[in-house]
Amino acid sequence: MKRSLSGIQPSGVLHIGNYFGAIKQFVELQDEYEGFYFLANYHALTSSPKGEDLKNNTINVILDYLALGLDPEKSTLFLQSDVPEHTELSWILSNVTPMGLLERAHSYKDKTAKGIKPNVGLFTYPVLMASDILIYSPDIVPVGKDQKQHVEITRDIAIKFNETYGKEVFKLPKEKIVENVATVPGTDGDKMSKSYGNVINMFGSKKQLKKQIMNIVTDSTPLEEPKNPDNNITKLYSLFATEEEVNALKEKFLAGNFGYGHAKTELFDKFMDYFAPFQKKREELLQNMDYVNEILKKGALKAREIATKKVDEVRDAVGIMKKSY
Amino acid sequence: MKRSLSGIQPSGVLHIGNYFGAIKQFVELQDEYEGFYFLANYHALTSSPKGEDLKNNTINVILDYLALGLDPEKSTLFLQSDVPEHTELSWILSNVTPMGLLERAHSYKDKTAKGIKPNVGLFTYPVLMASDILIYSPDIVPVGKDQKQHVEITRDIAIKFNETYGKEVFKLPKEKIVENVATVPGTDGDKMSKSYGNVINMFGSKKQLKKQIMNIVTDSTPLEEPKNPDNNITKLYSLFATEEEVNALKEKFLAGNFGYGHAKTELFDKFMDYFAPFQKKREELLQNMDYVNEILKKGALKAREIATKKVDEVRDAVGIMKKSY
Repeated sequence: MKRSLSGIQPSGVLHIGNYFGAIKQFVELQDEYEGFYFLANYHALTSSPKGEDLKNNTINVILDYLALGLDPEKSTLFLQSDVPEHTELSWILSNVTPMGLLERAHSYKDKTAKGIKPNVGLFTYPVLMASDILIYSPDIVPVGKDQKQHVEITRDIAIKFNETYGKEVFKLPKEKIVENVATVPGTDGDKMSKSYGNVINMFGSKKQLKKQIMNIVTDSTPLEEPKNPDNNITKLYSLFATEEEVNALKEKFLAGNFGYGHAKTELFDKFMDYFAPFQKKREELLQNMDYVNEILKKGALKAREIATKKVDEVRDAVGIMKKSY
Repeated sequence: MKRSLSGIQPSGVLHIGNYFGAIKQFVELQDEYEGFYFLANYHALTSSPKGEDLKNNTINVILDYLALGLDPEKSTLFLQSDVPEHTELSWILSNVTPMGLLERAHSYKDKTAKGIKPNVGLFTYPVLMASDILIYSPDIVPVGKDQKQHVEITRDIAIKFNETYGKEVFKLPKEKIVENVATVPGTDGDKMSKSYGNVINMFGSKKQLKKQIMNIVTDSTPLEEPKNPDNNITKLYSLFATEEEVNALKEKFLAGNFGYGHAKTELFDKFMDYFAPFQKKREELLQNMDYVNEILKKGALKAREIATKKVDEVRDAVGIMKKSY
């Protein structure tokens, strides 16, 4: 079975745009690949979160992913920080990484162009990312289009290392572009994004989720008149409903005497049907944190075994002595 | 007892310029401070040595320092790579380190000005150095004048970290400038330096050491004539001899009928008297590598205990979860 590797950003509460845009596809890859999924909490430091926030986000994202279908029986789930060898390899790799390679990284250029005062972590994190990847010798790295360059940088670093030390120490990974099959509109019709404040979350109180759905922006066509069926509600509805159900909804819009409020209620019901099993699963996990910790422990030990083996190989190649203890 | 920390570069064969310029003073500090001495083999990677060379240099420098008086009963000697927490802390610190701080580092500016094509390690190594230091909370860091800025950068990073996380996690270290009390001239009269090819080593075959001393550049004053007593031979002789002995040598030069060859032989004898015990000690150590490895193991375990404690404190402050295993 080929191996895949995915990093998960512990960046706060997930919304259905995250789910249909990426998580669903990541989770589906489990059947095809031996999956390694790690919570990238070292990476999260580049945006200097408060300590408590980072811890909470980390735990929440683990629960979210497990609830959404990441299966510890199939895949290895672990915290990046449980395998500190990632940072050791990152230092070693930085010595074969030309400055120019990082200066050309889109994410760094974009952030500095936005006036973000750069710290060194923001500049060097593609090297840590290369380490995250190369340490597990994956065949593929599923990424969104915007992350393609990071896998390219990883390959460049791996090639440079192999050339410098005259050994095929690193396998060259391939990106697998996860197409954003479902374009998820936000409640205002723009792309759903936390930073636009137009999201619908998956987990949270029923009241909060209902409020988010009721906030979907619609036009002011009176109740009794026919409405454009290709509206925001229909688009969101089609994420959860069969083609038949979507057509039925469209007909109701065209027939008139069917208000946006009714449609939102139908959407909410479908939404809850869809996510209720996930919400239930998450509740159960939250009540059973020992089990969650056991998953992380098992994952860490498995990941670390692979990682230390690779780092030992790298240390030997570059001339770092075996550990004396 | 106050604590001091010194990094030792595993950069090849040592010469008497290294010894009188720095090592002697480092070794003497052992009586005054609780010393931590580490072989900076992660740092050595910035100049991309061959793997075998780095390993050999590492072992040789350990033997040299132990032979020259580093006392494992008084001080903790260890390999940097035996405490990979240095690299973990370095990653964490890089997220509070402004790019500008590293861009202003002399060593980086000097190297790029010399046309050295920079790699990322060369740029970021002051952060690793800050980590090397801060992880052991030393009171002082003995450095040459040229290294003063690195301790300043370390303080800047420590202050930034403590401010960002609102806790005095790091103690601010002070540099202790080790004055180059003895200016050691090379065999050509310039400052002794490996890159000038004018060195006298301490360890090596008698033949090789004799040849280096016989190579000392002198003028062509005939044997029978008086000579300028403040010559290169006298300067080197004074490193090993008492004031009386130095005066006696000077008188011989002034009296005439005393050739430079005679003087070189006297210098060689004094040199051998001085370094013979060190050479003998080194031979013994080389015959007893199990003992050397035991020293490194003991040092690593002691250093690592302190380092992991500090890194755990740092992880907690920044929001990295406790290890799950």
